[in-house]
Amino acid sequence: MIYPKIPLAQTVIQLCKAKNIKHIVLSPGSRNAPLTIGFTHDPFFKCYSVVDERCAAFFALGIAQQIQAPVAVACTSGSAVLNYYPAISEAFYSNIPLVVLSADRPEHMIGIGDGQTINQPNVFKNHILYSANLKLDKTIKEDRVLAGVLKTIEHKLEDMLHLQKDVQQINETEINTALNIALTESGPVHINIPFNEPLYDRVETLTVSPKVIEPEEKTLELDFETIEFCANDWDIAERKLILVGVNGPNDIEQKFLDVLAEDDSVVVFTETTSNLHHERFFPGIDKMITPLTADEFKALQPDILLTFGGLIVSKRIKAFLRQYKPKQHWHVGLQKANNTFFSLSKAIKITPNQFFRQLLNRTTVIDSGYNAYWDKIQLLRNVRHEAYVKDSVYSDFKVFDILLKTLRKDSVLQLGNSSTIRYAQLFHLPNDVEVFCNRGTSGIDGSTSTAIGCAVANSKPTTLISGDLSFFYDSNALWNNYIPSSFRIIVINNEGGGIFRILPGHKNTENFDYYFETKHLLTAKQLSEMYGFKYQSASNENELISELSAFYENSTSPKVLEIFTPSTINDTVLIDYFKALK
Amino acid sequence: MIYPKIPLAQTVIQLCKAKNIKHIVLSPGSRNAPLTIGFTHDPFFKCYSVVDERCAAFFALGIAQQIQAPVAVACTSGSAVLNYYPAISEAFYSNIPLVVLSADRPEHMIGIGDGQTINQPNVFKNHILYSANLKLDKTIKEDRVLAGVLKTIEHKLEDMLHLQKDVQQINETEINTALNIALTESGPVHINIPFNEPLYDRVETLTVSPKVIEPEEKTLELDFETIEFCANDWDIAERKLILVGVNGPNDIEQKFLDVLAEDDSVVVFTETTSNLHHERFFPGIDKMITPLTADEFKALQPDILLTFGGLIVSKRIKAFLRQYKPKQHWHVGLQKANNTFFSLSKAIKITPNQFFRQLLNRTTVIDSGYNAYWDKIQLLRNVRHEAYVKDSVYSDFKVFDILLKTLRKDSVLQLGNSSTIRYAQLFHLPNDVEVFCNRGTSGIDGSTSTAIGCAVANSKPTTLISGDLSFFYDSNALWNNYIPSSFRIIVINNEGGGIFRILPGHKNTENFDYYFETKHLLTAKQLSEMYGFKYQSASNENELISELSAFYENSTSPKVLEIFTPSTINDTVLIDYFKALK
Repeated sequence: MIYPKIPLAQTVIQLCKAKNIKHIVLSPGSRNAPLTIGFTHDPFFKCYSVVDERCAAFFALGIAQQIQAPVAVACTSGSAVLNYYPAISEAFYSNIPLVVLSADRPEHMIGIGDGQTINQPNVFKNHILYSANLKLDKTIKEDRVLAGVLKTIEHKLEDMLHLQKDVQQINETEINTALNIALTESGPVHINIPFNEPLYDRVETLTVSPKVIEPEEKTLELDFETIEFCANDWDIAERKLILVGVNGPNDIEQKFLDVLAEDDSVVVFTETTSNLHHERFFPGIDKMITPLTADEFKALQPDILLTFGGLIVSKRIKAFLRQYKPKQHWHVGLQKANNTFFSLSKAIKITPNQFFRQLLNRTTVIDSGYNAYWDKIQLLRNVRHEAYVKDSVYSDFKVFDILLKTLRKDSVLQLGNSSTIRYAQLFHLPNDVEVFCNRGTSGIDGSTSTAIGCAVANSKPTTLISGDLSFFYDSNALWNNYIPSSFRIIVINNEGGGIFRILPGHKNTENFDYYFETKHLLTAKQLSEMYGFKYQSASNENELISELSAFYENSTSPKVLEIFTPSTINDTVLIDYFKALK
Repeated sequence: MIYPKIPLAQTVIQLCKAKNIKHIVLSPGSRNAPLTIGFTHDPFFKCYSVVDERCAAFFALGIAQQIQAPVAVACTSGSAVLNYYPAISEAFYSNIPLVVLSADRPEHMIGIGDGQTINQPNVFKNHILYSANLKLDKTIKEDRVLAGVLKTIEHKLEDMLHLQKDVQQINETEINTALNIALTESGPVHINIPFNEPLYDRVETLTVSPKVIEPEEKTLELDFETIEFCANDWDIAERKLILVGVNGPNDIEQKFLDVLAEDDSVVVFTETTSNLHHERFFPGIDKMITPLTADEFKALQPDILLTFGGLIVSKRIKAFLRQYKPKQHWHVGLQKANNTFFSLSKAIKITPNQFFRQLLNRTTVIDSGYNAYWDKIQLLRNVRHEAYVKDSVYSDFKVFDILLKTLRKDSVLQLGNSSTIRYAQLFHLPNDVEVFCNRGTSGIDGSTSTAIGCAVANSKPTTLISGDLSFFYDSNALWNNYIPSSFRIIVINNEGGGIFRILPGHKNTENFDYYFETKHLLTAKQLSEMYGFKYQSASNENELISELSAFYENSTSPKVLEIFTPSTINDTVLIDYFKALK
């Protein structure tokens, strides 16, 4: 086997292997050559080469999101490293394990005016679970600088050898700590790795054998008092609202969902990203609550608000719960509990399944008209929704209705941020479609790369629905050799940032069009051609239906479907929709 | 006039105006709407709208690089901000004044799970001259949260009004400080600006009038002792080497250059990015020194090494000066003096012109064969160079020779990093061509955006020469409405990272092609079409000469010339070139 000669590179690679980190996304560079040589010559690893580090990191994030295990990215020194930052922040807020391996120059070569050299240690400090700033491991014979020093202080050789041993131990501990945190706390960690030249040397036998430190097993159990307290309050609360944002498919055991669904005092509001389905749940939150009167809001105001999972999309549910605060808000989950509604009373640090197992064993259903009341309203909304959809003209709204009714069975849906995710929330999604969206930072910057990472890691076919600005923003995502032919991109091109027409700006002025909506006449056609996607387009309902008919069929290359919608009426159709729900 | 209603937005905008910051690069967003509204409605400002924040910041950097004055970028909250980071680090190491205005949520809305919300304060800490973390200014009547508080503690109203006044004062001071630092220290500063909703409200009269604090005038003069010391040493040193990296056109007064050129004990090594020209200078450093023997290196080893300007490209001159250390190394300039050769003895904090004015007044030329000796070698090298060029086959090397001989008169040349800048250093550049390259971090990530910013700000026509990876990396740069029709891009497409073939890796293996050279078959054709560039291409010498014949003529749209070169022979041609110089 071929290994990099530098022991520190061997150490990093062996510890990644020991922690079962298999997927490595590499970007080309010289400083990280020892890592590239090591990872790519060991068949244990599945290596990818992606040039643009911004895309590389989102691509890795997409893989990690699917496999729910750490994925590593590795790049050269300098500004390359900083291009990882948008994806790191998304990983930080979405609790996705991303291991950032940045090659660096040795410390004495930093800040002296050498090329591709910046201040890398702790550079992601604001959004990282751990920063391991490794020390240069000096292969003493070959380090010229050190050799110079040794000549003058030969008697200190033994001390320095000891020092070197200490450095190796410190590095091993630091790498173990970082990787263990990525594993157990599920988030991004940064390992900064200084390498001295020569960078390309190889050996056939490993020269170091780093110690593997296992992560501490934490047994998470709810203490007896908390269970009793929760169970008591649960048993007397007539209005229990469960609100679920980002949540992985099959994260919650079906039997618990069934019990909750049967409880008349429980209303389960699920967002599109929750991947929770039950006929007695309430999947269209904005549809449900937008037309409510103050009295109805009071009737919805819960005694207990229970949340689990990640961030909430709906601004309306946030506004409602901030104004009509629940008496108690419990958040269940291993990660940080957000006080989203300024009423958090309990942060319960176990998994939702553990929580429901313990809670539902000790509680019973109680008499309440809570669910029935809202069920009636939901039925009414659905009738109004269908009536409006039927008559609505060609627009973003209409397009989403058509798209979400024609998705592939057993497929994965990746949604772009901004208007895409908000439109998707208004419609029913099939139970067999898994839904993902980068809601950690809700950025428009890496959705396509994330979707491609997902497409690579999930055996089900993946479809991305994206707005035009988000798609063009991440156009380099398509510069990727691993895109499966089953991957589909749907770009809804309304010639700008449609979201701004929905926000309370001053529309229909030149200033608005230019600086907010950012109108453009770009299309996805040339990018599709450049990167080997089959390109289709539609500009009205008939064309859309026609183009969709064979869009998902097996193909030799991935496909883009670009749907042009009329930007000037999109907002009116949406506003009228909410009026029509009343 | 229209102003944003939020006083803090008015304050930021008025202070930018007071400091004469005219160019504002905006990215679309809602949180930064108060800034967008204010900047775009005041005709004092020249506003630009660029969607991808990574490109927006490099575009702003390109403008600032040309006008040598601060340029501002402004974006919404969340990961958008992080996309500025690569350009910020370039500005940091290239001493370019870039003012980063990031809109943010109010403090109480951070870390509670709201969308587009990250930890923005101090997020660029490792590469910023100043971080002003502003406080929310509460327009008391309208702030609901505060209103709630006031109801219960009405007697504290007066205190809170005072507090509010303090906040305004603190913010004003912080903004003044940040902008003054950008102005006087010439580098990036970050102003993080929390805004509460409503964000789109406007007023017709300003409601605040912030205090303008002028930057402290520093009179920089060399103290008498230092001048005397320098002059004495200068007068007795027989070997004075002046080495100039990045340096703006016309930065140094011609009369000083003339004196230095006439001094037999002075050798002036100029890099392509130095914009210094004199027939007695030595512009081809690598060409000069690569074939030297150890004895010749000893003969070149200077008594005094004098440097000014920015970073040095040539790895060979760095290696030489690190091994054959000068007795003294003086660095002259207002910015940080890099100890690039581990022998820095004096950091002289005045401008090079001030330094030469004082030094050259007190010194005389002395007898020395230093210049003459190297002049002879330079002549020899030039003969060998011309002979090799004449016979060399079509390759990157040959292409650079042709390109650099056919540039437009009185034009600006922007060079991509990696092989582009290194090849350019081997050839003579016309005196009337101004040369720029992002050498602060030497990244491949923003060269096209920087070049477009330069093209917008400089009245001379701009040409960018870029490698293929660098060009595709920054493809979103072309998503820009301000590109002048005189702008030209030359992409040298050798189907991958040609630099890696020159570095000491293991070439001609599948692993090398894939993970280092990152071979691809992309072309710039589709991007050119997408963004309205006229596209031309060449694959051999005749085609190149033919395509160049009308390439620079006036046109209604900017143009791309893509030159395909044979990747497998490029490295041999270069290696043979250095052999042929001997």
